[in-house]
Amino acid sequence: MKYLLLFLMLCCSVNGNAQKYVLLIHGGAGSLTPGMVSPEREKAYRKGLQNALDAGGKVLKAGGTATDAVVAAIKVLEDDSLFNAGKGAVFTSEVKNELDASIMEGHTLKAGAVASVTTIKNPITAARAVMDKSPHVMMVRAGAEQFAKEKGCTIVDPSYFRTEEQYNSIMNIKADEKKDKELQNKKAYLRQPENRDFKYGTVGAVALDKYGNLAAGTSTGGMTNKSFGRVGDSPIIGAGTYANNKTCAISCTGWGEYFIRLVMAKSISDRMELAHMSLDKAAEEMMMHRLPELGGDGGMIGLDKDGNIVDYFNTPGMMRAYIKSNGETAVKMFKGE
Amino acid sequence: MKYLLLFLMLCCSVNGNAQKYVLLIHGGAGSLTPGMVSPEREKAYRKGLQNALDAGGKVLKAGGTATDAVVAAIKVLEDDSLFNAGKGAVFTSEVKNELDASIMEGHTLKAGAVASVTTIKNPITAARAVMDKSPHVMMVRAGAEQFAKEKGCTIVDPSYFRTEEQYNSIMNIKADEKKDKELQNKKAYLRQPENRDFKYGTVGAVALDKYGNLAAGTSTGGMTNKSFGRVGDSPIIGAGTYANNKTCAISCTGWGEYFIRLVMAKSISDRMELAHMSLDKAAEEMMMHRLPELGGDGGMIGLDKDGNIVDYFNTPGMMRAYIKSNGETAVKMFKGE
Repeated sequence: MKYLLLFLMLCCSVNGNAQKYVLLIHGGAGSLTPGMVSPEREKAYRKGLQNALDAGGKVLKAGGTATDAVVAAIKVLEDDSLFNAGKGAVFTSEVKNELDASIMEGHTLKAGAVASVTTIKNPITAARAVMDKSPHVMMVRAGAEQFAKEKGCTIVDPSYFRTEEQYNSIMNIKADEKKDKELQNKKAYLRQPENRDFKYGTVGAVALDKYGNLAAGTSTGGMTNKSFGRVGDSPIIGAGTYANNKTCAISCTGWGEYFIRLVMAKSISDRMELAHMSLDKAAEEMMMHRLPELGGDGGMIGLDKDGNIVDYFNTPGMMRAYIKSNGETAVKMFKGE
Repeated sequence: MKYLLLFLMLCCSVNGNAQKYVLLIHGGAGSLTPGMVSPEREKAYRKGLQNALDAGGKVLKAGGTATDAVVAAIKVLEDDSLFNAGKGAVFTSEVKNELDASIMEGHTLKAGAVASVTTIKNPITAARAVMDKSPHVMMVRAGAEQFAKEKGCTIVDPSYFRTEEQYNSIMNIKADEKKDKELQNKKAYLRQPENRDFKYGTVGAVALDKYGNLAAGTSTGGMTNKSFGRVGDSPIIGAGTYANNKTCAISCTGWGEYFIRLVMAKSISDRMELAHMSLDKAAEEMMMHRLPELGGDGGMIGLDKDGNIVDYFNTPGMMRAYIKSNGETAVKMFKGE
């Protein structure tokens, strides 16, 4: 009887682990605080996050891989014009949409990224194609677009990405630039696209699948008024995206230049691997100390190999949501939620 | 008398530290072993390295910054058609020259990079302009070229970078591709541009200046027959280039995809910062264990804040050279030199 009990406990434990999955997503960090947008708009943001969670969660529940779930969730956010990725991306200083995305798998350390692309409907699918179907990790602009097309990614006219809201946003900045020469300090403009609810509208996802594998992905339109050809942290493996089964999966959003200089995602992973910190402690140190010390801001989501999740942001708000195999789920926008 | 002696010792020590400088450069890692090339060609490689060392060393001796020295040394290697950076870069699969470069400063963690550019004579100067004169860290293709032009970098016709040797190299590969369909596995081609003395001809420099500041820079034409738009590790901060006054300055050369996936340069720095390894131990672990375990190859140079230098490569040879303020200097091409 004692042995039967032990056997059953062991089965449950193995099964429990094998069946465990987690999906955590974000829709950008920014200045949004309760009451700043209409209840309808807040509802739409939450609905958008829920839709992405549903898409990715379904994949994991059905036994799909973490990579599949990350792509499924991010595709929904790219297609939703409320988020600054895919359709609805912000405009560059040349009034164009340039998109970046990356993906990484924790069990193989395989990775793929595309940067500064203008015709790929879902940049995350192109990043995945680079990872799975090329010997390369990173491809940019026309070369990336040509490759994505060859591999079956949906190609659209650049006008597909345009939304009136984002177009008006860049036009207002352009008008202000003309009005006040002193304000032509690009840094100030990059930092303060005031008419954005979420100034860093990058989207991302991290997942742990039933097989114990981690994956992370990030997709973005970058920062409003960014220079033509500027690439932020989102397509940089180690900066905006990183996954390693030994440690964690990370996706960042924020003032990308600071995340690149800090090699943010890898720095968090290395704190776990080399200094034996928990994910929470490692992320807290990088996001709440190193990042503001250098002058940057933004947010991140992280998921460790045991299914623990964290989010940190030193902006007033960050859109994030998660679902776990045990049924636990939440959609959050504000601090303290 | 005792106090005078103490005072003098203090002066020497402060002065000694303050006057100390080191420059370490590389010209790529590859399959070259003694006797594989003509004595004339070997001499030309060594002379090229010496010229770069002279240019950078002069800057440091005169009290210039590590950043100035890194740029000075790399410019010489970019202008030398024997090295795969600037003039003499390898060709892409579309028979074009696409160049990447990056630079980072250890005391500010400021960084700049350009990728996939085709008209900037010295990509390292454009990377520096991005670092010093833009709010961005990374810019690609036409946007980077337009920015570099505005900031006074020399612009050339893409044909400037072409050398007959590299042109013949890509043409031979193209002919082989036609001849043998089975050999069309891109991975094999990327790995084996047999007619290159140094298959990974990236160049780089790391420096410690008299003020105790570190800097690192890398410049490359990438890999022969790389896909149009492919970006390797050279312009990726944390992968091919990293500098931090707390730890070290690193420049890598090799099969870039593996260096990106391992976030090579930052992984070495983090081993020093978080696991308290020496530069030598940290570099050895990443280059001689993690890199081959994943299937990659290449080399790196590193310099710590105390002026200790290392080079590691898991290829038969790597071109490297250094000069120190104490007069110590060497130019090396082969293993064991």
